[in-house]
Amino acid sequence: VGELINTSRSAVGEAVRERDELAIAAIARMEEAAGADYLDVNCGTMLTDEAASMEWLVDTVRKAVSVPLCIDSPDPDVVEAGLSKCEGFQPMVNSITDEKLRWDSVFPLVREYHAKVRGLCLGEGGMPSSTGDRVRGAGSLVEKLEAGGVEVDDIYIDPLIQPISTDTSNGRDVLSAVSEILSAHAGVHTICGLSNISYGLPARRVLNRVFMIQAMTSGMDAYILDPTDRRLMGDLFASNALLGRDRFCRRHTTAYREHLYD
Amino acid sequence: VGELINTSRSAVGEAVRERDELAIAAIARMEEAAGADYLDVNCGTMLTDEAASMEWLVDTVRKAVSVPLCIDSPDPDVVEAGLSKCEGFQPMVNSITDEKLRWDSVFPLVREYHAKVRGLCLGEGGMPSSTGDRVRGAGSLVEKLEAGGVEVDDIYIDPLIQPISTDTSNGRDVLSAVSEILSAHAGVHTICGLSNISYGLPARRVLNRVFMIQAMTSGMDAYILDPTDRRLMGDLFASNALLGRDRFCRRHTTAYREHLYD
Repeated sequence: VGELINTSRSAVGEAVRERDELAIAAIARMEEAAGADYLDVNCGTMLTDEAASMEWLVDTVRKAVSVPLCIDSPDPDVVEAGLSKCEGFQPMVNSITDEKLRWDSVFPLVREYHAKVRGLCLGEGGMPSSTGDRVRGAGSLVEKLEAGGVEVDDIYIDPLIQPISTDTSNGRDVLSAVSEILSAHAGVHTICGLSNISYGLPARRVLNRVFMIQAMTSGMDAYILDPTDRRLMGDLFASNALLGRDRFCRRHTTAYREHLYD
Repeated sequence: VGELINTSRSAVGEAVRERDELAIAAIARMEEAAGADYLDVNCGTMLTDEAASMEWLVDTVRKAVSVPLCIDSPDPDVVEAGLSKCEGFQPMVNSITDEKLRWDSVFPLVREYHAKVRGLCLGEGGMPSSTGDRVRGAGSLVEKLEAGGVEVDDIYIDPLIQPISTDTSNGRDVLSAVSEILSAHAGVHTICGLSNISYGLPARRVLNRVFMIQAMTSGMDAYILDPTDRRLMGDLFASNALLGRDRFCRRHTTAYREHLYD
């Protein structure tokens, strides 16, 4: 899931404020060309007209690329505004939690628009702080989503990464949680954003990249990332090949030809 | 385990033939400075005087560095020649197998010199071709080594890596074997050489590096590698930090200061 179309990035914020279609289209095309399977669309910094900005953004990105979109907002009205512009492909909702307010406002949208959904391991008890918290949080979410008619293949569980700088077991806890979640819920996907893991440390891109490989090894199969980061994507393709998910290593060989390994 | 002192590398072969102490000392010091915990010493290409070359090599390397050595030869007489020069530290023997001839000739040396030992998952049946082959091979070796008085902490099991180019499941099989071996034999170490995994494919250094991270995630804790490969070592330190094996992330921060992440 490409993460670049986010108004918290200043160039994107400016383009959205000025309704600059060309600037947004350029970023979207860059992400698609780099191999993104979904594009996240977030205009959470547009405090006064987030819903209108979301509708414009979704329309604009759709005109530019053919990959499906991931509608990303804390505001359910904005999520609905985005989803309403997604006819013709299956969108993803970013995100739902097990908190009552969030669940009650977002779940009906996931159903109505037959969306894939990123489910955060987060309930009324707050952020998970152990492997067990994450596994229980995932179990509760998967059960409710399936009971509500969402197919397992449309569920992307996010174990919620916390920085290793605050507790060196935070990385290992997430990896264990991913393994346990996947063995408890066959067919479910797991997903995460990579940057939290390295918060407060130097060489963050190295840590994010290495943690992605570790998470893949534990079974994670989706990431919210910058697909134009060549070294990150190179390691992703190499890792897939090594895990036996790249027939005849063809994608790896293509990545080599595209100079992702320079 | 630093792999550079090997006469199959032409500069090393020439230095050994000419008994060039300075050249060998320079390589050994480079490996030690880069963070190697053991230095492999191999003069297998010196067909006519391998034993004499090994004695000279071990003496020469010991004069240059203080890290212990890993004596590497297919010939038990050469292994003994090397071990006889290792008083003062605990050497490692590279390697033993479950093949009767190899076992009978090498095991007495492991005992006599109280050496750590790299045990290859290889019996009379030949190279392992599945996770199960490796787990059974490891089980047999660990049992015999322990019965013979070798402590588990001195046992380094090598699951024997085969290239993903010949079968894309070869990487995954090794990772599964490592997990299973470690849960069946508490306290045993696992080790591998990295370069076989990428045989026949482009961008071999990328594949070797990513596979190292995958193997670490599965619990492997020793590698035969080039410690002067900065990107490889950078990823090793980052991976350790992410797995919670680097208190306060200090080694990671040092690696950053030493520009391993450039």
